Amino acid sequence: MSQSPGRKQENHKISRELFVLTYGALVAQLCKDYEKDEDVNACLDRMGYSIGIRLIDDFLARSAVKKCRSYSETADMIAQVAFKMYLGVTPSVSCSSATGNEFSLILDKNPLVDFVEELPAERSSLCYCNLLCGVIRGALEMVHLAAEVTFLQDRLKGDAVTEIGITFLRKPEDRKHRRN
Amino acid sequence: MSQSPGRKQENHKISRELFVLTYGALVAQLCKDYEKDEDVNACLDRMGYSIGIRLIDDFLARSAVKKCRSYSETADMIAQVAFKMYLGVTPSVSCSSATGNEFSLILDKNPLVDFVEELPAERSSLCYCNLLCGVIRGALEMVHLAAEVTFLQDRLKGDAVTEIGITFLRKPEDRKHRRN
Repeated sequence: MSQSPGRKQENHKISRELFVLTYGALVAQLCKDYEKDEDVNACLDRMGYSIGIRLIDDFLARSAVKKCRSYSETADMIAQVAFKMYLGVTPSVSCSSATGNEFSLILDKNPLVDFVEELPAERSSLCYCNLLCGVIRGALEMVHLAAEVTFLQDRLKGDAVTEIGITFLRKPEDRKHRRN
Repeated sequence: MSQSPGRKQENHKISRELFVLTYGALVAQLCKDYEKDEDVNACLDRMGYSIGIRLIDDFLARSAVKKCRSYSETADMIAQVAFKMYLGVTPSVSCSSATGNEFSLILDKNPLVDFVEELPAERSSLCYCNLLCGVIRGALEMVHLAAEVTFLQDRLKGDAVTEIGITFLRKPEDRKHRRN
């Protein structure tokens, strides 16, 4: 990309450790604020949603990606461009439904839990990284894609990998087209 | 630095926008939790301290810096290496006392407030970025340097720049040496 002369391009790159520790402080604070894990999870999702609807502009401006033409392309874009840009990792993507609207992002290593050893016993239903689901949901909504985003597996809970499920919700007109 | 063969060096670099927005969510949550700005500031400082005492290991391991031989070198290291690494900016440093133990880090631009327009009128005493003071204080303590770290100026409050003051607290044996 060309740069306007005389204007130094800003460096947006940082090491992620301060972010990871700050995120930990946020989750710890919410655990103080809410007794029930479900309330912490819902709060993280809401916060993430608010972040996602703002982050999408930054993402589109700096990634310079083109419009995706399929759910599959969109899922790949989230994994290969957005995750790489904002978390420094690239999840693998798998399509988990015959209807082509359900995808999984699979993380062998989740940098957000770098400093977390394990969840406390009394917090066994906590979705520690639930902010990410909200971020993805919010960002997708801003490009007119409604989606449900949830954790399907979590290494913090003893699963072999961390898996985020994205289900794109078909629009009414899609269904109508299919019927016709 | 050499890399052990067969082991891919991990990429720790991320874009800072997700961090900045997540930090905003943390401050907003604390503003819900605490009525008084002073309590929010104190909480941010405590959280930062806990982060600093953990982050220092990461910093020393990845920066590979040598031991600083003076307060002045330490202040430069914080500005030129640590701020650059974790926030992607390099504050300028000035020594603000004849005794050589007070320094200012001056930020023309503070990336942590990228998405903040201004503080709400009822939050005029909020030190929005107070987490940073705690981080610096905690990290310094782990290398046996006691310091007071506070915001002296803040662009969010209408000041021309953002200025973080670091006062290294002399150890009793320092004073003793000087008396002798």
